[in-house]
Amino acid sequence: MKQRVIHYVLSRLHQLGITDIFGVPGDYAFPIDDAIDEDPNLRWIGCCNELNAAYAADGYARIKGVAAVSTTYAVGELSALNAIAGAYAQHVPVFHLVGMPNRATQRARALVHHTLGNGEFDLFYRMVEPVVCARAILTPENCASETERLIAAALSQRRPVYMAFPADDVNQPVLGMATPLPMPQSDPAVLEAAIAAIVEKVTRARTACILPGFLVARANLRQELEAVIDHSGLPFATMFNDKSTLDETHPSSIGMYDGQLMNPEVRAFVEDCDCVLGVGALLTDFNTGAFTARIDRTKSINMLYDHVRVGHQVFGHVWMKDVLQELARRLPRRSDVKGPPVSGLGPPQGTKDGKITAEYLYPRWEQFLKPHDILITETGTSSMGMAFARMPANTVFHNQALWGSIGWATPAAFGAAVASPQHRTVLITGEGSHQLTAQEVGQFARYGLKPIIFVLNNHGYLIERLLCKDGEKAYNDVAAWNYQQVPAALGCDNWFVARVTTCGELDRAIARAETGETGVYIEVVTGKYVAPTLALKIHEARGTLYMQ
Amino acid sequence: MKQRVIHYVLSRLHQLGITDIFGVPGDYAFPIDDAIDEDPNLRWIGCCNELNAAYAADGYARIKGVAAVSTTYAVGELSALNAIAGAYAQHVPVFHLVGMPNRATQRARALVHHTLGNGEFDLFYRMVEPVVCARAILTPENCASETERLIAAALSQRRPVYMAFPADDVNQPVLGMATPLPMPQSDPAVLEAAIAAIVEKVTRARTACILPGFLVARANLRQELEAVIDHSGLPFATMFNDKSTLDETHPSSIGMYDGQLMNPEVRAFVEDCDCVLGVGALLTDFNTGAFTARIDRTKSINMLYDHVRVGHQVFGHVWMKDVLQELARRLPRRSDVKGPPVSGLGPPQGTKDGKITAEYLYPRWEQFLKPHDILITETGTSSMGMAFARMPANTVFHNQALWGSIGWATPAAFGAAVASPQHRTVLITGEGSHQLTAQEVGQFARYGLKPIIFVLNNHGYLIERLLCKDGEKAYNDVAAWNYQQVPAALGCDNWFVARVTTCGELDRAIARAETGETGVYIEVVTGKYVAPTLALKIHEARGTLYMQ
Repeated sequence: MKQRVIHYVLSRLHQLGITDIFGVPGDYAFPIDDAIDEDPNLRWIGCCNELNAAYAADGYARIKGVAAVSTTYAVGELSALNAIAGAYAQHVPVFHLVGMPNRATQRARALVHHTLGNGEFDLFYRMVEPVVCARAILTPENCASETERLIAAALSQRRPVYMAFPADDVNQPVLGMATPLPMPQSDPAVLEAAIAAIVEKVTRARTACILPGFLVARANLRQELEAVIDHSGLPFATMFNDKSTLDETHPSSIGMYDGQLMNPEVRAFVEDCDCVLGVGALLTDFNTGAFTARIDRTKSINMLYDHVRVGHQVFGHVWMKDVLQELARRLPRRSDVKGPPVSGLGPPQGTKDGKITAEYLYPRWEQFLKPHDILITETGTSSMGMAFARMPANTVFHNQALWGSIGWATPAAFGAAVASPQHRTVLITGEGSHQLTAQEVGQFARYGLKPIIFVLNNHGYLIERLLCKDGEKAYNDVAAWNYQQVPAALGCDNWFVARVTTCGELDRAIARAETGETGVYIEVVTGKYVAPTLALKIHEARGTLYMQ
Repeated sequence: MKQRVIHYVLSRLHQLGITDIFGVPGDYAFPIDDAIDEDPNLRWIGCCNELNAAYAADGYARIKGVAAVSTTYAVGELSALNAIAGAYAQHVPVFHLVGMPNRATQRARALVHHTLGNGEFDLFYRMVEPVVCARAILTPENCASETERLIAAALSQRRPVYMAFPADDVNQPVLGMATPLPMPQSDPAVLEAAIAAIVEKVTRARTACILPGFLVARANLRQELEAVIDHSGLPFATMFNDKSTLDETHPSSIGMYDGQLMNPEVRAFVEDCDCVLGVGALLTDFNTGAFTARIDRTKSINMLYDHVRVGHQVFGHVWMKDVLQELARRLPRRSDVKGPPVSGLGPPQGTKDGKITAEYLYPRWEQFLKPHDILITETGTSSMGMAFARMPANTVFHNQALWGSIGWATPAAFGAAVASPQHRTVLITGEGSHQLTAQEVGQFARYGLKPIIFVLNNHGYLIERLLCKDGEKAYNDVAAWNYQQVPAALGCDNWFVARVTTCGELDRAIARAETGETGVYIEVVTGKYVAPTLALKIHEARGTLYMQ
């Protein structure tokens, strides 16, 4: 018998490396849910709600390269939209599988649940258009070709795709056939011209450096970029959204570059270079120190997935992988270019009985990190502090510095932990952000995972206090939870839970966390305005941040 | 000085009856947040996340007629979309105020946070189109006229509207002026023809009845419809989505009509009528007993907001209010038509030490209800049980029977309680649904509200177990929370909390709840498949429900 529609799709997803599918079930999606449940290669990972499920898929894809989330029609898919949009912004390929009412229901324009009551069934397919790189309503006729088109789009653009399934088509035999589409190839002549232009620019530069970007990590081209660095000897600086693209212990690393706001010696070096080679990085607000970075366009090269800009020249149809592979052979060796020495946060500053300050907390967290950790930090002040910690070898730092949807981090950490249970997943989140999606903490215990969760309780949305006109505005307050009771309430029965208010208490809790015996949930209580340096600088830079 | 853009909008919202605005703050929305904070007529009600905030606004609007929610750009508004769509489906007018990046940022196509990184700023305004009845990006130039247009749309269609504010326009003086638009008027000639057709049909009918619908409650036309009922003497039956449109203690009430699934005597009477006059009701799947209702179109009249269908004739441009007012004078008196006697659920069946069964639970909840209660029931089996409880005088039953987004009920109950703190807000939700949005429980305590919350713990998504092909599928399971610890974890420190597994324990907990001293959170534990009759019937009726 021919393969059924859903089996075709699921088997292809599994071939891409997906072994777990996040989701919330729903009646129109039952045929999908059943197929996942019955597929020996796949595990259904239930989440509390669809937004959280899609965030978890985002976290999983950041570790495994791709992920999938399944929701029901309308109510489910719309709840997931913000997370899908975030995956689009941050270049995370998430396959969103949506179950739709069957063809008979759609033909009849029936007044069924999960509709607006107007007999229209393609509205949500239409709404999703701006936040996915491709989408299709799967049928037996188009299943093979559309699945391959969507997979090629997701893999080449590293962005989410949307696949909807009318319930009665899910188990129909696939008609026709298709083969995986080839990944796009560089135009050899353009590639040669681009390489020549880059090589010439780097050769003529008095000083040069590289800005490795998050797209490199997303496209799984870390090794290729590292080969360029190793071959050329060029130093590299990293921006916020790109942190941990390359190992921060690499001898060519000169640390974090954040415009005029932080690390003046890094800024001086980068902005003094005759040639700044960006590889998959974007000059966003939070990558540029609120637009205080000054990189002359004529001096810079910018490589994205499918094109390279060298000064004012743009070379299209050249793919990052090909460019990097050529550069790793042909760039000049520039052992003469030396950047400033890299530094981390230094030793924690504080006393055992003293309150927890930023000068203690962030260096202490930096000390705590170990090789191979997966660190997920939430949008807000905590990630701004951790961005300047020096990460040990083979650690990854994940954040959502462009999309910046608070609440992302908690479920994303769950997804990362599902993807890589053998490594420590460390979540650092502010409590205001945590409240958006906190219920997902219960899933760690349900699936036998042991994350280390730090909830920074600074009594409200601190980053908002620092950005609004009056930090004391009541809208910056949040409900006063008893955080140390949260894990047990959510079924994490034997976790180590602590509430720490002094440096000594923090140390003791961290020591206990390091045993790795159980899941860990530590509420770190600080003063209302205890903020890392970058957050304070951003406060001062509101004028450039908001282009006022 | 001229009124500023945001003040114009907020003052108009306040004139409509809004005194509280739900939301989550965000930097692009700060000028809106500040204005709300500084408006002596408005209270900012912070929620844990934007979906919950919009659900809360939905609950508030069901009590006060209108509501408003404010979110930030992109990440905030997209998270709220599912709730906005639900308000559209269920005809709830919610004003969604969204803060956008300022004009300079938009003009520069700047790579700022909360964007997709593509320099496009109108994407989310475009996406919202299908789920609101009107939308605008407010500027000083269009503020007055667009605000009036949106208000008129929201009030005449009873549906959500979307208002976005570029941050730098929020505090600009309003240019131009506008007056509130008149509500649409019926065409007198068409109205006369429609009334004549209705009167003739009712006069000639051997038996006739009325189906009052939720649109009547939404349009605040309960009294007008009651006058029709009182004048005509016609009995009325009510469908699921329309429950409590009219007082169920009214002598003309004959109870709930649900096709062939429930109350056979009501079905026999309604379907035997020569004339069934629907007023603002929709023949949706769950209103028609999974499409088992049989109402001959030639025998029926259907009145919606702006038109009436009499048999096959449609009369446009006639508004419900005008039609009802005429009918209350001109319908014939039909004291000859008598429907079946109405019954509730009867006495609870069970013993003190016995496990909690559906035969005990739903009648017990029915007994517990008091006049003036606000009952919010979640999509799923619990609402299917409560739909057949007979509600005391002046109570309202709220559900989301068309849109059916699980998770709605908990924040909606919060919004209802904010709207009407002087009445008891009773929330009945399954635990699977509760997990989607449970964090909002903490807001009740934060704002000094004392709801009575029943969390029905039947170990998973029961309605899904009943609708899918194998109830034991693992996707129907949820994380095993310790529900009785949830309120305290979320800051509800002095609430009465109980976990009940027997009928006697339930009785004792309810007795304690009735004191009204504190917020109440009762976990009601039942067997996995303990379901009310309707849910079991729906299980049997899957063939017609899904049009298979």
